[in-house]
Amino acid sequence: MQTLLLNSEDVHRNTQMPELIAAIEDAFAAYERGDAQMPPKSYIDLPQYNGDFRSMPAYLDAGDWDAAGIKWVNVHPDNREEYDLPTVMGTMIYSDPRNAFPLAVLDGTELTMQRTGAAAAVATDHLAVEDASSLGIIGAGVQSYTQLRAISTIRPIEEVVISDLDEEKVARFVDTFEGEFDVRAGTPEDAAACDVLSTVTPVESPIVQREWLGEHTHVNAMGADAKGKHELADEILLDAKLVIDDYEQTTHSGEINVPWSEGVLDDDDIYGEIGQIVVGEKQGRAPRDGVTVFDSTGLAIQDVAAAHVVYEHADENDNGYPFDLMGLDA
Amino acid sequence: MQTLLLNSEDVHRNTQMPELIAAIEDAFAAYERGDAQMPPKSYIDLPQYNGDFRSMPAYLDAGDWDAAGIKWVNVHPDNREEYDLPTVMGTMIYSDPRNAFPLAVLDGTELTMQRTGAAAAVATDHLAVEDASSLGIIGAGVQSYTQLRAISTIRPIEEVVISDLDEEKVARFVDTFEGEFDVRAGTPEDAAACDVLSTVTPVESPIVQREWLGEHTHVNAMGADAKGKHELADEILLDAKLVIDDYEQTTHSGEINVPWSEGVLDDDDIYGEIGQIVVGEKQGRAPRDGVTVFDSTGLAIQDVAAAHVVYEHADENDNGYPFDLMGLDA
Repeated sequence: MQTLLLNSEDVHRNTQMPELIAAIEDAFAAYERGDAQMPPKSYIDLPQYNGDFRSMPAYLDAGDWDAAGIKWVNVHPDNREEYDLPTVMGTMIYSDPRNAFPLAVLDGTELTMQRTGAAAAVATDHLAVEDASSLGIIGAGVQSYTQLRAISTIRPIEEVVISDLDEEKVARFVDTFEGEFDVRAGTPEDAAACDVLSTVTPVESPIVQREWLGEHTHVNAMGADAKGKHELADEILLDAKLVIDDYEQTTHSGEINVPWSEGVLDDDDIYGEIGQIVVGEKQGRAPRDGVTVFDSTGLAIQDVAAAHVVYEHADENDNGYPFDLMGLDA
Repeated sequence: MQTLLLNSEDVHRNTQMPELIAAIEDAFAAYERGDAQMPPKSYIDLPQYNGDFRSMPAYLDAGDWDAAGIKWVNVHPDNREEYDLPTVMGTMIYSDPRNAFPLAVLDGTELTMQRTGAAAAVATDHLAVEDASSLGIIGAGVQSYTQLRAISTIRPIEEVVISDLDEEKVARFVDTFEGEFDVRAGTPEDAAACDVLSTVTPVESPIVQREWLGEHTHVNAMGADAKGKHELADEILLDAKLVIDDYEQTTHSGEINVPWSEGVLDDDDIYGEIGQIVVGEKQGRAPRDGVTVFDSTGLAIQDVAAAHVVYEHADENDNGYPFDLMGLDA
């Protein structure tokens, strides 16, 4: 028995977005039904290196399939400058829950981008207007690409506005997509006026004003993943139909963590968890809804679900490098 | 930058036992000094498969070196019968603490055996008589091999008694070592009379009687790693100078967990943690000491320390398979 090694390119190539979106939706549903196990993220803080490690183990039973694994991920903000490495990297071990054999070791960096895009797509599918044709993205880093790929899978996106202070990043994004979409650089205000807006920045003070949003804009607030991070003006969060991925994680480190800790926003302002909408316990967008917001922190079950999709395709396609990690074939 | 893949054979080949024993001692010391981080093991229980997963992240700063990583390990008792797989398997991600780059992915199964042997050697070095020349081992499974390799590194072992109900396992052990040691099969009673005894069994009711032990026998109780497991008669634990690896883990799932939970044994019966002895805060064997016991559950810092030793040697020796997991060289 061999363990399949899947590098970033293998992960990219074997992410079938429609299937990934369905798997992420399955994962949110399993979590809501109590058919998932997700111990709290555990942290190792290394202030001497201005960084930390997080371990994210999970198991989920989606009914037709189940999956287990762990992602080991970090945040080291000085990495680019000091080591020419990404701030956030991840390595994922994907295991057979029946016997724990390590089926695959995957690049968790690419996997995180893909599953984060897919989570935004699940939320957009339930919360954006049906005919949403314009997508604004604030932040032109690596996450912006999978936002567009994923969201355009479930809505007829034609017009894309990309906004970032870094003109090189903006140009690269436009170059990549100009054959497929009507894509242009714009201000955050331009981006916010679209039918769907995704924010994928690391900012700690809001960069989106309430009045910039369209009447029915659905916002995917993807950037905040730590205490103190905050992309949207409080008025947006207070006015919107506000959906979160997980109560513990969002109040601790999601988009809502700052106003929640300051008492500006409380539990009554939260409409529900995405899992409740996915299983039909709560309604998604209703005809009279205006602005909607999805606060995504990223759950370990998403990683496991994404690893499942990637592994199944890679195995079928003979992608990846099979390695006798455990020496069972010796 | 490449991630080094180290299979069981690579791990075996690059375990320099004297250096590993020193690194494990360093790890116990770092933990005692507060220079290690070891979040509690987190569990995923899968009763439908009669198994579980455990995640063991850790960081330690030994002064001259530091190291971080995570071991993802399982216990699936039906594996041998149903899948012809080991009951316990492990996969280890070893990372550079400075920037979190995944330096290596290692077979954690072989790594666990090696670091467990080394932990017994550290305890034996501090607790056994200086001229210990006989070693008894009860349980002839995979762990018995590293017990002998490690303990014979730090004591002049000549005579070895191996005891197991499985005659095939005993024969294999004797075959392996008969050129190097005066090795013979024996009863548990024979094994217990040696200067050093290691118990490496999964039993839940004691198989070693108090009266079988030699006057100065040092016992490494390595087998118990879960609630209910118990290898030594309570009288041994009550009479001995009793040293543990970690208070939380041993009272929960170590050799002492059964008598401790029954109130037969309490905190006053515990002499100290191995880290306290290693740093010199408490004395190891004293001239008048009789029987000594080390209750080992296995700590995540041991895995990280072992991965450090293996990785450094594999890198020097060009062993392992370098893999561009993150696609940084693309």
